[in-house]
Amino acid sequence: MTTTDVTDLAAKILEGSTRGLARGLTWIEAGGPRAEALSTALYPHTGRAHIVGLTGGPGSGKSTLARALARAARARDLTLGIVAVDPSSPFTGGAILGDRIRMNDLALDPGVFIRSMATRGALGGLCRAAADAVDLMDAAGRSLVLVETVGVGQDEVDVMRIAHSVIVVSVPGLGDDIQALKAGVLEIADVHVVNKADREGASRTVAELRTMLALMPAAAGVWVPPVLSCVAAQEEGIEPILDALASHMAALKTSGELERRRARIAEARVLKIAQDLAAEAVVRPKSAAAGRLLERVARRELAPHACARAILAEGIRRP
Amino acid sequence: MTTTDVTDLAAKILEGSTRGLARGLTWIEAGGPRAEALSTALYPHTGRAHIVGLTGGPGSGKSTLARALARAARARDLTLGIVAVDPSSPFTGGAILGDRIRMNDLALDPGVFIRSMATRGALGGLCRAAADAVDLMDAAGRSLVLVETVGVGQDEVDVMRIAHSVIVVSVPGLGDDIQALKAGVLEIADVHVVNKADREGASRTVAELRTMLALMPAAAGVWVPPVLSCVAAQEEGIEPILDALASHMAALKTSGELERRRARIAEARVLKIAQDLAAEAVVRPKSAAAGRLLERVARRELAPHACARAILAEGIRRP
Repeated sequence: MTTTDVTDLAAKILEGSTRGLARGLTWIEAGGPRAEALSTALYPHTGRAHIVGLTGGPGSGKSTLARALARAARARDLTLGIVAVDPSSPFTGGAILGDRIRMNDLALDPGVFIRSMATRGALGGLCRAAADAVDLMDAAGRSLVLVETVGVGQDEVDVMRIAHSVIVVSVPGLGDDIQALKAGVLEIADVHVVNKADREGASRTVAELRTMLALMPAAAGVWVPPVLSCVAAQEEGIEPILDALASHMAALKTSGELERRRARIAEARVLKIAQDLAAEAVVRPKSAAAGRLLERVARRELAPHACARAILAEGIRRP
Repeated sequence: MTTTDVTDLAAKILEGSTRGLARGLTWIEAGGPRAEALSTALYPHTGRAHIVGLTGGPGSGKSTLARALARAARARDLTLGIVAVDPSSPFTGGAILGDRIRMNDLALDPGVFIRSMATRGALGGLCRAAADAVDLMDAAGRSLVLVETVGVGQDEVDVMRIAHSVIVVSVPGLGDDIQALKAGVLEIADVHVVNKADREGASRTVAELRTMLALMPAAAGVWVPPVLSCVAAQEEGIEPILDALASHMAALKTSGELERRRARIAEARVLKIAQDLAAEAVVRPKSAAAGRLLERVARRELAPHACARAILAEGIRRP
C-alpha cells in the first residue's frame, strides 16, 4: 500500500464509483493499516447519509423487508447502501442476508449497493468494520444506508449503536422465550415493525409492543417509537415505514438529539477501536518487544499492569 | 493514597497479616490507581501458590465442595485462600458462595481466608480483580488458592484461565441442555469431579464424561484429566481430589507445561488489562482532553482511529 493508492481509491469512492466502493469495502473487511488509512481519508466526507439499523429475530423477514424498503426508497430517488452483518458466522461472503438480496431484481440497479460482512474472530472488529463500511457508503454519496444484523444478541445491539434510526422487526406468534431475548433490542428501537402482519395474532403482537412501550420510561426527547405493520413479501405497509424514518430524522434534528446521538456514536466507535487496538497490541502482531515483556511478566519481573501500559504505548504508535 | 500507604500495606500482606490481606482485597475490589500500585508492589512476590479453579453449573455443589476441600487441605497443613467470583451479580459482598462458606466452622480458622467478589459493571474488570485478588493471597503465603465461579458462561471460562489446575464439577442427572452449555467448560478441565455421587445416575455421568474425554483431541502434554466421584456434603471422596491436584501440579512441572501455562496466564492477564485500560481511557475518567477529541470526531474533524490512538496514548500515561 502506498499513500497514492489510498488517495486514488478515496477519490474514486468520493466520485461515486461503484467499483471503487466495492474495492474499498474489501479493504475495510480485511482490516489493518490500509483499512485504517482509507477510513481516515474518507471520514471528513461522511455525515450526510441517514444511517438506519435493521434488526430482529431469526425468521422475522429482515432481508425481505430490506429489499422492500430499498425498492420503495429508490422510487423516492434515494440511493442506498446496505451492509448486512452476521456476527455469528465465521465465514465472510457466505449466503447471508445481503447475498440473498443480491440475487434478485435490485442487483441490476446501481442505486443500491449491498455488502455482506461476517465476523473476523473473537477479538471483535466486526463493529468497527461495519462502522467503517457505513462510512464508505456515506462518503460515496449513498443517501440511505441500511445496516442489517442477523440475530438478537449483544453484538447486534452494539452494531445498532452506529445507526441514527433503529428499526426492530417482530413477527406475530413468537414464543415468550424469543420475546425475552429481545428485551435489550426492543429498548433501542426508534421504529417498531410487525412484519408478516397477515398472520394470525398480528394485532395482538402490535398491542403487546404498544403495552411494552407504555411501560418503558419515557426518553428525554419527544419521539415515541411508532408500531407499524407490514407484509414485506407483498410490499404492503412499506411507505409508512419510510415516512416514519424521515419523521424520526426530522425529530432528531429539531430536538437537538441528532447532535447528541452523533456524539454517542463517535464515543462508541472510538471505544471499540481503542479496545481492538489494545487487543491487537498484546495478541496480534506479537512483536518481539511485546513477547519479551510478556516473558518478564511470566517470570514475575514485571507486573501485568505495567506490561499492559508498555505494550499499549508501543502498539498504538503504529500509524 | 501515598506511596507509604501502599508500601506499608504490601509489607503487612507479605508478613501474612490477615487484616492486611482483607484491606488489600478491598482495595483490589474497588480498583483504580491504589489497586494497581498494590498489585504492582506484590507481584514480584507471587508465583508460589497452587492456583486451582473450581467451576460447574448451578446446583453442582461447588461451595460445599470448596468447603470440603479446604478442610481436607488444612489437615495436610496447607493454608488456603478462596476467591468466590460471581460475574452475573451486580452487587458486591452479597450472599454468594464465599459468604455461605464463611458462615460455618471454617470461619474460625485463620488458615482459610475467603473473599467474595462480584462484577463491577459492563466494562469488565472482574477477571482483572480476581487475578489481582489471587496474587494477594499468593503473596500472603497461602499455599493453595481456590477460585470459584458461579455459572458456566464465557466469563467463567475467562476467570478459569488464571488457574494452574481447573476442577469442573458435574452432578448426576443433568439435562442435555446444561451439558451442552458446559461444553466450553469441559474442555478446560484438568480434573473432573462428579459431586452428589450417591444420587441415581452417578455412574452414567462418570461414564459419559469419560466418553466425552475420549472423543476430545489429546492435549500436547501427557496429563489425562481423571474423572472422580465424591459426596462433598458428607466429605466422601475428597482426598483423591486433593491427590489429583497435587499430581497435576507435579505433571505440569515435569512436562514443562507449567512454564507454558504461566506464559499463557501472563498473556491473558495483560490482554484483559490492556482492554480495560483502553475502555477506561475512552469512557471512564472522561477527561476534558478526551471529551474534546470525541467532539472533534462527532464533527468529522478527526477520524475515530486517530482519536482512539490519541486517547490511548494520553490515557495509558497515568501511573
